[in-house]
Amino acid sequence: MSANDTIVALSTPQGVGAIGVIRLSGPEAFSVVAEHLGAWITEAEANTVHFGRFTTGDKVLDEVVATVFRAPRSYTGEDVIELSFHGSHFILNEALSALLTSGARLANPGEFTQRAFLNGKLDLSQAEAVADLIASESEAEHRLAMHQMRGGFSKEIAQLREELIHFASLIELELDFSEEDVEFANRDELVELVRTIQGFVQRLIDSFRFGNAIKQGVPVAIIGKPNAGKSTLLNHLLNEDRAIVSDIPGTTRDAIEDIAVIEGIRFRFIDTAGIRETEDIIESMGVKKSLEKMKSASVVLYLFDAVEPWDIHQKSIVGLIEELDQTQAEVIPVANKTDLLAADTSFHEAVVPISAKSGVGIEALIQTILSRINTTGAGRGDVVVTNARHLHALKATDEALKQSLHAIESGLSGDLIAADIREALHHLGSITGDITTDDLLGNIFGKFCIGK
Amino acid sequence: MSANDTIVALSTPQGVGAIGVIRLSGPEAFSVVAEHLGAWITEAEANTVHFGRFTTGDKVLDEVVATVFRAPRSYTGEDVIELSFHGSHFILNEALSALLTSGARLANPGEFTQRAFLNGKLDLSQAEAVADLIASESEAEHRLAMHQMRGGFSKEIAQLREELIHFASLIELELDFSEEDVEFANRDELVELVRTIQGFVQRLIDSFRFGNAIKQGVPVAIIGKPNAGKSTLLNHLLNEDRAIVSDIPGTTRDAIEDIAVIEGIRFRFIDTAGIRETEDIIESMGVKKSLEKMKSASVVLYLFDAVEPWDIHQKSIVGLIEELDQTQAEVIPVANKTDLLAADTSFHEAVVPISAKSGVGIEALIQTILSRINTTGAGRGDVVVTNARHLHALKATDEALKQSLHAIESGLSGDLIAADIREALHHLGSITGDITTDDLLGNIFGKFCIGK
Repeated sequence: MSANDTIVALSTPQGVGAIGVIRLSGPEAFSVVAEHLGAWITEAEANTVHFGRFTTGDKVLDEVVATVFRAPRSYTGEDVIELSFHGSHFILNEALSALLTSGARLANPGEFTQRAFLNGKLDLSQAEAVADLIASESEAEHRLAMHQMRGGFSKEIAQLREELIHFASLIELELDFSEEDVEFANRDELVELVRTIQGFVQRLIDSFRFGNAIKQGVPVAIIGKPNAGKSTLLNHLLNEDRAIVSDIPGTTRDAIEDIAVIEGIRFRFIDTAGIRETEDIIESMGVKKSLEKMKSASVVLYLFDAVEPWDIHQKSIVGLIEELDQTQAEVIPVANKTDLLAADTSFHEAVVPISAKSGVGIEALIQTILSRINTTGAGRGDVVVTNARHLHALKATDEALKQSLHAIESGLSGDLIAADIREALHHLGSITGDITTDDLLGNIFGKFCIGK
Repeated sequence: MSANDTIVALSTPQGVGAIGVIRLSGPEAFSVVAEHLGAWITEAEANTVHFGRFTTGDKVLDEVVATVFRAPRSYTGEDVIELSFHGSHFILNEALSALLTSGARLANPGEFTQRAFLNGKLDLSQAEAVADLIASESEAEHRLAMHQMRGGFSKEIAQLREELIHFASLIELELDFSEEDVEFANRDELVELVRTIQGFVQRLIDSFRFGNAIKQGVPVAIIGKPNAGKSTLLNHLLNEDRAIVSDIPGTTRDAIEDIAVIEGIRFRFIDTAGIRETEDIIESMGVKKSLEKMKSASVVLYLFDAVEPWDIHQKSIVGLIEELDQTQAEVIPVANKTDLLAADTSFHEAVVPISAKSGVGIEALIQTILSRINTTGAGRGDVVVTNARHLHALKATDEALKQSLHAIESGLSGDLIAADIREALHHLGSITGDITTDDLLGNIFGKFCIGK
């Protein structure tokens, strides 16, 4: 699998900083760098750091720190050198072109990590987690990516896959003895294993809704009549932890969405401005009008004026929940303007009373939102799927497992059962990269930044 | 001089990249990092690299590569650890705050380099060159900064200063024996030394015009009548090597200036649009109107239509040179539209004939510009002052030296001579940092980026 060329790229962000790091990996890493630092670098021991003068022609381009890693004990599993330059555009551009001239090739996006995968340093789902880790902007995203990078469900998948391979082999062995009508593979045990894997796969599939919400931001819609206090509530929620979002350069904000990180989870507040036109309560709640928008929400905050009668809203909410049922969005009724009511006013247990004006009840509302998204299909523990490719493979696995169960239970012949199980194994294996194609790898690593 | 606290900062640019490096320096660098990587890091040998898990509380924040330097063999001369994280904003922010919580302090701009200076790793002019090196965007800027960082004129200044200190001491010794009327310091030798230093200082002062032009970009004004072909010529010059400028993110371009890097030197083309109003040639050349703008130019390209009679323009140019004399700008007469003339048309030797339309002669024009700026006060060799602070100190040195010569030649008493020489020593010493004040250091290092 080992690559026979040497790749190079700037591994630190573009822009002016104290230092910029250029990374090389491949069989010629040392000889390419030796042309600019001197032959001594080829003798440098693994995991050591060296000061040197980086020359181009007879000119000293910069004084650098070279960090030396030797195959296989490096990120890529190959010989790796990292050169730490002064963070000048001019120097980094000159150094890159000098290294290219000396025989290195500019790395493709993600190519360092791709080589790490090809050299068995991490499996495919771990490699994908590296990109997620770099892109993570909230604690929840970070936790899921880190968990996945450090193994995640890879080990469990690998183990279940091995057991399944064992059964598939036994069934295929039966085929060789087909005239003798033997059963090496105990059908009951096989059914039990398939059901176990199905349960595991289903839990992962269910977790995607939560995982995707974490990765993309949890979509929240606030609906309510024009004077219900939507903007005030939204501003409260946005101010909650706004600084964390705004000090992150490069945070892309959809023009019609507001983003806030609250207790480590990123929320996307969906614009429901179109709802304000009519005066009829149900209409004004936009049950029909902005249903499409609400369907993309994980949480819908149904905001109403606390002085208004609850039963009208209750009806409206029941209708809303029915409409939203398929999307499984959580609807939370929120009674606003409690500051206008007596302090001892009681509310229906499903209702969260707040005063968006004074801030009373906002904290309880946030806790309610957090509890709802944590229970929405997420299941327990850290086994959460965040990657659409994984979801797709899991669904295909599930389908193949269903087929195989059907085949077993219908008493179909071993070769048909084996074919279904091989199919399931294929999809399960594609998650961790036991099964890959060049297209798949290109697609995955092409989304990385260059230098990783 | 050694600092007693430990500083930390992000040393790579903000933005998403494969890696981000956080640097710590100070007596507690190892113990601060140990809280997050484990106690083993405190035992790590100098100049080695280690893989580790960076934890905050009981959570793994990232898998990092730690590079270990031990005082005094580090950039700052103190214990230094560089931690290479995945280039995620979230991770880098979390790691920074964790390290701050563990007792490190956020570094001020340039504080790492300031510590390097205070620990004698580099002198002040070398430290200043580090900032120039990072900011350099053309080969010429880079060469001057690199030369200065690697010692530049420091050694020469140090040597001349030492000789001068020797004389100053001898003169001061005379004062102790003032009643005996002895002369320990040979006045002729002293005069010779002062003149040598004066010559050296004057060469450095003269070089500033060139050095500053290189650092700020060489200012070029193109003047000429509306139909002389200014825009066509400018576009030609800008296209010469435009790519180098435009692929540098963060290049700030003054709205009214165009910038191009030509043969490794950055040029700033000054807008002289205001010149176009009148029709009278001298007036339209803007000798009076845009004289202020032209005064800031190092090179003025006087562009005229090659079919127009040379003697009118010659007169105009003579007037222009007289007006510009004080600024020492180089005026180059350029005859455009040679494509409209017979191929064998001859021109005055001072004139550069071009066709901005076809591109003929542009290369010769560029060579003429380059030859002019290289001889404009720059002198030979690499001893070039680029720093306004140095210029100021050199002028003050020159002034004090003049005073001391005057004192010697007037046969004034030793204490007066010694005072002038001490004054010269003070200013000369401020360049390399032998003489410093906190204000001066704050002023110099405050302009650095954080993390350097």
